[in-house]
Amino acid sequence: MGTVIKGKPVADKITDSLREELRGFEKLTKIPRLGILRVGERPEDLAYERGATNRCKKIGIDVEVKTLPMDVTQEVFIEELKAYNTDSKINGILVFRPLPEQINEEVIKYVIAPEKDIDCFSPVNVGKMVEGDPSGFPPCTPTAVIEILEHYDVQVEGSDCTVIGASMVVGKPAALLLMNKKGTVTVAHSKTKDTKAVAENAEILVVAVGRGKMVKKDWVSDGAVVIDVGINEDEDGSLCGDVDFEQVKEKASKITPVPAGVGSVTTSILAKHVVKAFKKQHQIE
Amino acid sequence: MGTVIKGKPVADKITDSLREELRGFEKLTKIPRLGILRVGERPEDLAYERGATNRCKKIGIDVEVKTLPMDVTQEVFIEELKAYNTDSKINGILVFRPLPEQINEEVIKYVIAPEKDIDCFSPVNVGKMVEGDPSGFPPCTPTAVIEILEHYDVQVEGSDCTVIGASMVVGKPAALLLMNKKGTVTVAHSKTKDTKAVAENAEILVVAVGRGKMVKKDWVSDGAVVIDVGINEDEDGSLCGDVDFEQVKEKASKITPVPAGVGSVTTSILAKHVVKAFKKQHQIE
Repeated sequence: MGTVIKGKPVADKITDSLREELRGFEKLTKIPRLGILRVGERPEDLAYERGATNRCKKIGIDVEVKTLPMDVTQEVFIEELKAYNTDSKINGILVFRPLPEQINEEVIKYVIAPEKDIDCFSPVNVGKMVEGDPSGFPPCTPTAVIEILEHYDVQVEGSDCTVIGASMVVGKPAALLLMNKKGTVTVAHSKTKDTKAVAENAEILVVAVGRGKMVKKDWVSDGAVVIDVGINEDEDGSLCGDVDFEQVKEKASKITPVPAGVGSVTTSILAKHVVKAFKKQHQIE
Repeated sequence: MGTVIKGKPVADKITDSLREELRGFEKLTKIPRLGILRVGERPEDLAYERGATNRCKKIGIDVEVKTLPMDVTQEVFIEELKAYNTDSKINGILVFRPLPEQINEEVIKYVIAPEKDIDCFSPVNVGKMVEGDPSGFPPCTPTAVIEILEHYDVQVEGSDCTVIGASMVVGKPAALLLMNKKGTVTVAHSKTKDTKAVAENAEILVVAVGRGKMVKKDWVSDGAVVIDVGINEDEDGSLCGDVDFEQVKEKASKITPVPAGVGSVTTSILAKHVVKAFKKQHQIE
């Protein structure tokens, strides 16, 4: 039976190390600050905002939240975003997406200042991710996947990795980050003829589809490391991942649970990116 | 024995269609214009420049070349690039790379205007490629790979594709473009444990490594489509690809030759991108 690899130890380690690092900045009068821009009151946004705020507080990062009504115009939204861009107290900006339909994300992604864009909204940061440029900010969730693999000593270099799901939010960036770590990466998606075969071939299997318990025992090779990014509601109302955890943990060597897996690391990556942006903006090395 | 799929018919088709399209613009007094910025006199740059200029002339695109000495400073280089950016007669800019070491490409790639960056130097265009955003300019060589597949009716969607080579110039962008076409893509590289096995699994095999005749007959599955992006000098001084053409053509269903394969399509993609930039800049639809 495989080891269940939880997110909390990873998040705790990052949190501790950031808190320690910030102590070293005490001589500075400035404090890293995250600016959140939220339109409306979607429950999942509010939940993430709560988690991110708590995480940042623990570390010593200030959080400022600007909320806008659901019918806000694109002009006003851009004004508020630009105000964050130019506010020297704000080091990192998080924009909750999707934005309401009257606001064109294709326009907004060019407005956010790339050096404050801590969750990879700007094409500049997408480009840096492809190039493996360490000065950029890859998106938080796929970065959490990499942090978990590193924390639990899973070697990516040279390993056969399969990513199921090719979304811009998780699948594609996870594939690119694994490639940057020199994994041999295959990406499967809705048009893949035999996803099971592709999954079976993996030493590291990352699943980000959004379909509860889709990955069964016979999809996973013996001893594979399984990272489950999905969060779905089960028939009984409880949360479950894209992987059938009870079945697959018998075969995997390591497996993340849902909840308490990848999701619990994401906000510490966000905090890490705020501190990285802060250091860059204040020329701290 | 497989069909040899040459680049020329693809290049001719693109050329004809662009020339036709430009005829429709005759009422315009403006002509699309490519600005080339070249440092020094590297033979491969001169050869490509000649090919690109001829292709553009055939189509009706003007070409302007600015040459700078090998010891040009970064400041002067940036000035010249900015002059192209702001020159309304220039619609597309090609910068030959690598640049000499006193010029930092990490700086320059943010200077080139993304809307004139027809060979994907700017991170904005890299980002658009990842997102599959059709308003961008993916790099010419991997785009030529896709054009060849389309021209010869090779279905990418749902096909198992392997790209050998993970460079930023060809391998990674080819993989991303194939993913955007819904191929199931695996990328192999120097750290891949069993490249032969990954190659054998492919229905479409794209090779961009830069090692002459590396891919042998037993690496290729029966009926695979093989696209060879490599250009190497053989022992006898003749050109050869990364694929052992004579061997592999016995097994492949379709195979590109070297020379006269992918390389002969690249400049028509360049021309296509200049026309696309021209149209966008003049709001022609």
